[in-house]
Amino acid sequence: MATIQDIGVSAAINILSAVIFLLAFAFLRLQPINDRVYFPKWYLKGSRQSPSHGGAFVRKFVNLDMRSYLKFLSWMPAALQMPEDELISHAGLDSAVYLRIYLTGLKIFVPITILAFLVLVPVNWTNDTLEGLKVEHSDIDKLSISNIPFGSKRFIAHLTMAYVFTFWTCYVLLREYEIVATMRLRFLASEKRRPDQFTVLVRNIPPDPDESIGELAEHFFLVNHPDHYLTHQVVYNANKLAKLVKEKKKMQNWLDYYQLKYERNTSKRPTVKTGFLGCFGSKMDAVEHCASEIERIEKEEAEEREKIMKDPKLVVPAAFVSFRTRWGAAVCAQTQQTSNPTVWLTEWAPEPRDVYWDNLSIPIVHLTVRRLIIAVAFFFLNFFYVIPIAFVQSLANIEGIEKAVPFLKPIIEMPTIKSFIQGFLPGIALKIFLILLPSILMFMSKVEGLTSVSSLERRSASKYYIFLFFNVFLASIIAGSALEQLQTYLHQSANQIPRTIGVAIPMKATFFITYVMVDGWAGVAGEILRLKPLVIFHLKNFFLVKTEKDRDEAMDPGSIGFDSNEPQIQLYFLLGLVYAVVTPFLLPFILVFYVLAYVVYRHQIINVYNQEYESAAAFWPSVHGRIITALIVSQLLFLGLLSTKGAGQSTPVLLVLPVVTFYFHKYCKNRYEPAFVEYPLQRQ
Amino acid sequence: MATIQDIGVSAAINILSAVIFLLAFAFLRLQPINDRVYFPKWYLKGSRQSPSHGGAFVRKFVNLDMRSYLKFLSWMPAALQMPEDELISHAGLDSAVYLRIYLTGLKIFVPITILAFLVLVPVNWTNDTLEGLKVEHSDIDKLSISNIPFGSKRFIAHLTMAYVFTFWTCYVLLREYEIVATMRLRFLASEKRRPDQFTVLVRNIPPDPDESIGELAEHFFLVNHPDHYLTHQVVYNANKLAKLVKEKKKMQNWLDYYQLKYERNTSKRPTVKTGFLGCFGSKMDAVEHCASEIERIEKEEAEEREKIMKDPKLVVPAAFVSFRTRWGAAVCAQTQQTSNPTVWLTEWAPEPRDVYWDNLSIPIVHLTVRRLIIAVAFFFLNFFYVIPIAFVQSLANIEGIEKAVPFLKPIIEMPTIKSFIQGFLPGIALKIFLILLPSILMFMSKVEGLTSVSSLERRSASKYYIFLFFNVFLASIIAGSALEQLQTYLHQSANQIPRTIGVAIPMKATFFITYVMVDGWAGVAGEILRLKPLVIFHLKNFFLVKTEKDRDEAMDPGSIGFDSNEPQIQLYFLLGLVYAVVTPFLLPFILVFYVLAYVVYRHQIINVYNQEYESAAAFWPSVHGRIITALIVSQLLFLGLLSTKGAGQSTPVLLVLPVVTFYFHKYCKNRYEPAFVEYPLQRQ
Repeated sequence: MATIQDIGVSAAINILSAVIFLLAFAFLRLQPINDRVYFPKWYLKGSRQSPSHGGAFVRKFVNLDMRSYLKFLSWMPAALQMPEDELISHAGLDSAVYLRIYLTGLKIFVPITILAFLVLVPVNWTNDTLEGLKVEHSDIDKLSISNIPFGSKRFIAHLTMAYVFTFWTCYVLLREYEIVATMRLRFLASEKRRPDQFTVLVRNIPPDPDESIGELAEHFFLVNHPDHYLTHQVVYNANKLAKLVKEKKKMQNWLDYYQLKYERNTSKRPTVKTGFLGCFGSKMDAVEHCASEIERIEKEEAEEREKIMKDPKLVVPAAFVSFRTRWGAAVCAQTQQTSNPTVWLTEWAPEPRDVYWDNLSIPIVHLTVRRLIIAVAFFFLNFFYVIPIAFVQSLANIEGIEKAVPFLKPIIEMPTIKSFIQGFLPGIALKIFLILLPSILMFMSKVEGLTSVSSLERRSASKYYIFLFFNVFLASIIAGSALEQLQTYLHQSANQIPRTIGVAIPMKATFFITYVMVDGWAGVAGEILRLKPLVIFHLKNFFLVKTEKDRDEAMDPGSIGFDSNEPQIQLYFLLGLVYAVVTPFLLPFILVFYVLAYVVYRHQIINVYNQEYESAAAFWPSVHGRIITALIVSQLLFLGLLSTKGAGQSTPVLLVLPVVTFYFHKYCKNRYEPAFVEYPLQRQ
Repeated sequence: MATIQDIGVSAAINILSAVIFLLAFAFLRLQPINDRVYFPKWYLKGSRQSPSHGGAFVRKFVNLDMRSYLKFLSWMPAALQMPEDELISHAGLDSAVYLRIYLTGLKIFVPITILAFLVLVPVNWTNDTLEGLKVEHSDIDKLSISNIPFGSKRFIAHLTMAYVFTFWTCYVLLREYEIVATMRLRFLASEKRRPDQFTVLVRNIPPDPDESIGELAEHFFLVNHPDHYLTHQVVYNANKLAKLVKEKKKMQNWLDYYQLKYERNTSKRPTVKTGFLGCFGSKMDAVEHCASEIERIEKEEAEEREKIMKDPKLVVPAAFVSFRTRWGAAVCAQTQQTSNPTVWLTEWAPEPRDVYWDNLSIPIVHLTVRRLIIAVAFFFLNFFYVIPIAFVQSLANIEGIEKAVPFLKPIIEMPTIKSFIQGFLPGIALKIFLILLPSILMFMSKVEGLTSVSSLERRSASKYYIFLFFNVFLASIIAGSALEQLQTYLHQSANQIPRTIGVAIPMKATFFITYVMVDGWAGVAGEILRLKPLVIFHLKNFFLVKTEKDRDEAMDPGSIGFDSNEPQIQLYFLLGLVYAVVTPFLLPFILVFYVLAYVVYRHQIINVYNQEYESAAAFWPSVHGRIITALIVSQLLFLGLLSTKGAGQSTPVLLVLPVVTFYFHKYCKNRYEPAFVEYPLQRQ
């Protein structure tokens, strides 16, 4: 059991590392050489140029203005200053609403923390159960529900608070849902006219022996939407063309480079070798060579384009159909076109940059099978992922490697390498898996056949949340892998499970406090430092960059990464709601996380991240749903905990909460979710 | 344990009672006096007249044509002869598709029965486990899976059969879904033009201080559906008017009666007393009195009508909006009208006779609360219904009654009445509850706020199915009330529950065989006799009927009663699927039920039942869903059973089945359900 002193030490270490990260960031961001790492968003917007133009050579790389170092924390107020409307037009509605998740956390947890410290902490503290029991305990346990004696009447305070916290959380969620829905509708209505607002994506166009997909689509919509149909765009499978375009772009870049080189030094025309890797073969004039290459590729491109248009095999049975009015598009997107619901499927077209092209041609019949396969695969990934990792770990020992690759034996037997293999490799297998996990989940979502990047990210996020729920939250509480948990769930009765988990909750409070500090505080501070992009940018800049365009491309602004970041925020909601009644001492740590993360991500969204798509906050229903899930889980676990504390008669009173919460969720779903799925016909 | 002989005796008794019912029916239906009881459908269609016109007086009541008695079973082929197309135009698609449920049962179970008897019965029979164990057993148990020794390799046969049965059931379900969907679409397309096909029901029209509901609706649809809007009809709360109309109708009937009386006997004008109950007060000329009364009511009606049109409080915030084209109506019914999804809700208008008017004005916000209340109420009804009945039963003993109403003491103490109270009253309390149950469930569904009678019946049916599943199926198997079961489910682990139930299944086979015979065979044969309508009709005919119109109204053709009959069929699906692998001996009994019920209900639909509404087979998705549920339940119980029989290694193999079945269901839902919910825009 960790004491307050232990927590204090841990907090000091984590605060120190967070402060170091923040100081490092404050220093590094002021250096002009890092400008593209810490402000790529402005470069992409075109409102910032490389600071290297003009001035002394040293100034290009190092900031010598000492005064700027004194204001090293100035980025924080700057990040908070931009008003929300400006933020929306600067970084899109998705980003602005993403920040609202942190705000929602603050709105929920600030009053809960105050109430819990005013009511529950005194109620818990003024007992001496733990001292009486003479069990080992810390001061934190004295603040928690563990300190209330068996069957005490004081549990009424906790019960009341469970009700108050639930109603407060629901109230905040309702208000936020309302605000976000209004923001979304206003955003959609106020946007400049964009083609995708008049366009519907039609999939599963049934093949016809007499007509091409294009003709078919035209005839179909001329007949069934005669007053509103405007035009359509067939989707082609143009992988080869895309390759040619890429090749041409690369060649164009070389051409620019050589021309630049020639301009700087007109005395010598740059030459190039045409053979393998540019090292062998005859020398040629580089500019001429590139120009002729580009010409050749352009010709090929034209041929390929013609071929694609003609070859019916390369036409995907999907099309983007545009209408004269938004009304016509809204109607077509929401209605069933034919009596067979597996063909002529219409949905509102995603933005062009949001379309996930590879999945446009999947027939609906395959989707069920794909979902089944992925559901089974995800089940195994979630509950059995320990098995392959244990297998890899067992291989990664000295004898295993020596057996597999005997010729490495002399190297492996070297003491330093040996200790490295023995000490690190097993851990690395797990670490690699956890790093790869979001990509694995994204791959799974892609197999499921969703057609837009935004929906793929949402789907991956819900998978990741489930994974975190079982493999971080529950696994930490009942101290067993998900696989062992599965055994427990199958062999325990329905009312035993919340009891088993509930009992363990107060004991794990200190663990989760440490977790919040390491993963939350230091992690978020590390995020703003952008160590990985910083290193990669400088490596690229040093080895690969030839032209200004190359430098632009070497920037990796990244994006919010909804699929992996949102589930992590949700974990904090879960922790906060579960511990609010049980161990209120955990709440301030979560509050610090929300504040820090809000400032950091607001800064990153303004200065760094580049939006990959704009889904107009389509993710809010799932954010809302997961907070509701966390709330219900917290209620059930509290119920289980109380039933072991001699307060079994409170069960019916507590059982009301999850039922009411569930129906609250249903109400919200009816009331607000259509705003995120359907498109109203009435003009705003 | 019942032996084959016991079953034989029971079968003989039930067959005998079924035959008696059928014979009584064959006799009674030939009597002209019963014509309106057994052929009301034809009267309602206008193609049959009372056989009493002309002919001898006796012939009016008794059939003296002896030859017709010889062909007493002729109704059976007659019932089967009508081709399906004619049946649809005669009794509607709902009825025709309802009969398909029985056909589906036959299609599923005939091959399963044959296979089970060819494969499983020999496999089970050629063991002597039960004899070896020296437990009490019957020949039926020798045919069941109980006869296979612990851990035998013979379970492979049952496993294989579980797969075969699952795939066969799914195949039949898929084909039936396809057929029914096609029938529905063809039916909807081929119908004569009816106003409700061009009409959308709009609910939750938001109040406006400046405009009436009618004006509001007109403006809204003129703006948002300018090209298609035709007209609208506001819904009024006209309860008082309805009362007046009813009163007028009654008075009209009296007028007809007196006029008829006067015509028959012109010498004496009929008179009537105007006072209380027609027994007191001054005598008046009856015809004149009625005529003047009708005039008075007509005047009141006109006033009331005007009042309703003017009073905004009597306008329900709902309207029927008609469009110029089916296309326009289909678009409006499927799309969201405004950004607030709780107002201007549109759905395809039910038929006028199908509308459940009382629920049209419920705001959507109330619906969630109502659903929550009903969900909780139904939960208690399902699991705790035993408690109030036990309470009533405890009251219904001698002492209880004597205490409550002491003055009845002398009567109660009489020996016959005493024994009646002691013997029958407790049972009657339960019986009354079970008779009232469908009405209670229907009331619950009405509170939930559905707007059409057809959807109310579908909702009640699913509630009734849940009730039967817990209180008949599971309660019979594990021999405990649903309340005791609830205890079991809460205290047992997830994989223990199917085991507990699975083990008990083979032992209850004989009970369910008896159940099928009593409830299925004799019950269906009793249905065709129509004892209750027969008695009521003759009572009414004798005491109340004055005019021909009264006689028409005394007929009670009834209807299929989807809400209580369909769940009972589903119980047989459940029994058949559960016992197919375990005790195939039960299957023939179910087959007999399906054949008998099919013939009987086909006859009733052709000759008796009067369709209350036409939902174009909108109930098929729930029929399909419940068969799938039964299939999954049967798979899980078989899994539980096998795991206690030393065939635990088969668990993963069997676990595949429910997962695949579930995804099969999802596929069907995607593929066919839209045909029952949405309306395609393409012309058929």
